[in-house]
Amino acid sequence: MPDLRREVLEANLELVRKGLVLFTFGNSSGISRKKGLVVIKPSGVAYERMKPADLVVTDLGGKIVEGKLRPSSDLPTHLVLYKAFPGIGGVSHTHSEYATAWAQARRAIPCFGTTHADSFHGPVPVTVELQDTEISENYEENTGHAIVRTFRDIDYSAIPAVLVANHAPFAWGPDPLESAHNAVILEFVARMAYFTLGINAQAGAIGRSLHDKHFLRKHGRDSYYGQPKEKK
Amino acid sequence: MPDLRREVLEANLELVRKGLVLFTFGNSSGISRKKGLVVIKPSGVAYERMKPADLVVTDLGGKIVEGKLRPSSDLPTHLVLYKAFPGIGGVSHTHSEYATAWAQARRAIPCFGTTHADSFHGPVPVTVELQDTEISENYEENTGHAIVRTFRDIDYSAIPAVLVANHAPFAWGPDPLESAHNAVILEFVARMAYFTLGINAQAGAIGRSLHDKHFLRKHGRDSYYGQPKEKK
Amino acid sequence: MPDLRREVLEANLELVRKGLVLFTFGNSSGISRKKGLVVIKPSGVAYERMKPADLVVTDLGGKIVEGKLRPSSDLPTHLVLYKAFPGIGGVSHTHSEYATAWAQARRAIPCFGTTHADSFHGPVPVTVELQDTEISENYEENTGHAIVRTFRDIDYSAIPAVLVANHAPFAWGPDPLESAHNAVILEFVARMAYFTLGINAQAGAIGRSLHDKHFLRKHGRDSYYGQPKEKK
Amino acid sequence: MPDLRREVLEANLELVRKGLVLFTFGNSSGISRKKGLVVIKPSGVAYERMKPADLVVTDLGGKIVEGKLRPSSDLPTHLVLYKAFPGIGGVSHTHSEYATAWAQARRAIPCFGTTHADSFHGPVPVTVELQDTEISENYEENTGHAIVRTFRDIDYSAIPAVLVANHAPFAWGPDPLESAHNAVILEFVARMAYFTLGINAQAGAIGRSLHDKHFLRKHGRDSYYGQPKEKK
Repeated sequence: MPDLRREVLEANLELVRKGLVLFTFGNSSGISRKKGLVVIKPSGVAYERMKPADLVVTDLGGKIVEGKLRPSSDLPTHLVLYKAFPGIGGVSHTHSEYATAWAQARRAIPCFGTTHADSFHGPVPVTVELQDTEISENYEENTGHAIVRTFRDIDYSAIPAVLVANHAPFAWGPDPLESAHNAVILEFVARMAYFTLGINAQAGAIGRSLHDKHFLRKHGRDSYYGQPKEKK
Repeated sequence: MPDLRREVLEANLELVRKGLVLFTFGNSSGISRKKGLVVIKPSGVAYERMKPADLVVTDLGGKIVEGKLRPSSDLPTHLVLYKAFPGIGGVSHTHSEYATAWAQARRAIPCFGTTHADSFHGPVPVTVELQDTEISENYEENTGHAIVRTFRDIDYSAIPAVLVANHAPFAWGPDPLESAHNAVILEFVARMAYFTLGINAQAGAIGRSLHDKHFLRKHGRDSYYGQPKEKK
Repeated sequence: MPDLRREVLEANLELVRKGLVLFTFGNSSGISRKKGLVVIKPSGVAYERMKPADLVVTDLGGKIVEGKLRPSSDLPTHLVLYKAFPGIGGVSHTHSEYATAWAQARRAIPCFGTTHADSFHGPVPVTVELQDTEISENYEENTGHAIVRTFRDIDYSAIPAVLVANHAPFAWGPDPLESAHNAVILEFVARMAYFTLGINAQAGAIGRSLHDKHFLRKHGRDSYYGQPKEKK
Repeated sequence: MPDLRREVLEANLELVRKGLVLFTFGNSSGISRKKGLVVIKPSGVAYERMKPADLVVTDLGGKIVEGKLRPSSDLPTHLVLYKAFPGIGGVSHTHSEYATAWAQARRAIPCFGTTHADSFHGPVPVTVELQDTEISENYEENTGHAIVRTFRDIDYSAIPAVLVANHAPFAWGPDPLESAHNAVILEFVARMAYFTLGINAQAGAIGRSLHDKHFLRKHGRDSYYGQPKEKK
């Protein structure tokens, strides 16, 4: 799967270029739905010397199929997401500063403006905290389950990111690079929401009409943003 | 209009160089008053690969006159501004972080100091929120009308920027590059105003004399800032 | 005075390199005490294309002695400082973001830690606001007088910077580059003081002993920081 | 000790690359336990022109063994740490902005999330303030003693950093580069903790289970983060 390896490497490097990761704190993955195989960043390897061949290929059970390095320790979280969200093709996890601060503050990010509405069709939710037993056993997998429970009544394709309480954000998308882009936009939105609160602690979310207008002019059947050929 | 195309491209790139845009979130345009034609950035195209030929030329009704790409979806807002503000030659729209935060907080930016006074002869106003009916139909055009209504009693040439409530800033100027510069200065002023509030939540606007002094030493008949040949 | 021209250009460029100026918002100058001549940045000229020959030489009355361009409009403020503070050889004025925010908030920067104490032997003071009559006539000169009044009971060599209320900082030093360095350190200190207040709104200034210790290990007869040959 | 000199130079440069030092405000050192010798940055020398030969070698009493320049004035603090913490091989001191702000605010950094827990097995403590007599005599050495007293009941290898009240952070690690990395991570954690407080002033520390999980998946016998060969 040389193409998917290249795409996943590119998604990981995009996180670095956009200033979302310090050292090795972050990871992108991608999935081939046809083959049922996932490509993910190796654990604890510096981005600047990462080559496509260093990426690790596993099946949906987490068994290594190709690659000599250990996969990211967050692999089980990615696998749960791929299994629960059939429409996604890539997942990105970062500790980007502002999104992580919201996760640490255990507050969902309200939709304070159209920048948020352009990419997320509702507030970006925060998971509940894990129980001690969920932490001691299969922690990374349980992190995935907590995310999935959070989206029980939310359309994961309309809000492609989450804040894991006390931890950091995960974002996803139709392919690895789009999952990275969603992580970048989430950080941008989280930063502006932080500033908004600093200017007006009582700031409220925008109305439904404006929220729908912006999300739907970029996404779905009637979208009219961008060039026709760029649509997916 | 190869010159105007180059000027508009340059204005768009200035937004990128000054860190005001993420991905494709922003657009500059310019107008030839003689020909009644507007040049604007295409929608959703990456800045790094944009060439003068990619820019779109339309008339003041929004009809495409030259160019194979879709114009920015914010074109109707630009057109309303060109029609209502006859003295302007360029418009720049960004989602720059601090100015957007003020727009999201729905607060005008008070003039806290001479940096603001140098460029804006009063607080930078915020529009009222659009009605649902203004959002569902001709949203981008109605955004322009909301801006124009905000300037009913304000001189648009003395305060060349606005915060669109829940959305983001628009700035303008005598030519495309100056509109981009005003967008940059607005962001700089918005950032310092945010910090000012953090140091002193009761900070007040500066007095009229100081405000006038700074604005008028840079603008208008008796200005004495800069070099004589640089005056317009 | 080719050497002083080079030194002043270098000081101006140091402000740019350290991120203290946007566009042309800032200026450094230097003085030859022997000749009674001042070299200053021209008004409104972009830093990237400034050459030593563009700098303007004036006498202490502000009369241009060499140079074809207008001097910085802040020249009269610089001249007042050179006349009142005989030990200084350079002056730098910026609108650096955090120091300007403190000036806009009209609050002196308390000495919250040793970084501050290393360079400023007391809080960085803020001037009183100018009267309307001081603004309408000889504004820039009166800005200088307001600074000098602020230092009536303060040693200008021990606190080489000031916040001009509603405006921005001025810094000085034994030569142009050191005045620029003091402007850089002031901004660094202003930023950390802002963060300190955000963490602990009741944070207090450090004690006299620690303040003296840090200032005096870097400055004056018994200093022991740096290399012996670097002392002045 | 050419290897240790290179390692110490590299640690110092890492502080610069990661944006932790302004001018000469910071210093890294390393120790050869076998020889009982310490290599440290010279005092007040610019990083960009520092060569391995400029570094200063001293014994544990602070006597210069090799080198023509004065060692960092903070050397006595480093020496106290090397003597009290036998497992460390490197020490880094910076005035990084957010960690310094916490030190100035005299507040320990609570563990608000897993990024913190990954590297620090508890809150990052702040020392008590030094007494006047500790400041006037052997100030730098007493700074070291204050740090050591703070760790009387804390495992220095599990929390490899401290905030010196009113001053700035010190970090350490098994070798010079790791001490620099810990200083970088401390700054990252301090910044996110600052933002967290801004979003939720009542934010609390994470639970023991999650804290242990993250620290222990990266450190100690049962760690499973990173690649096997990278373990120490």
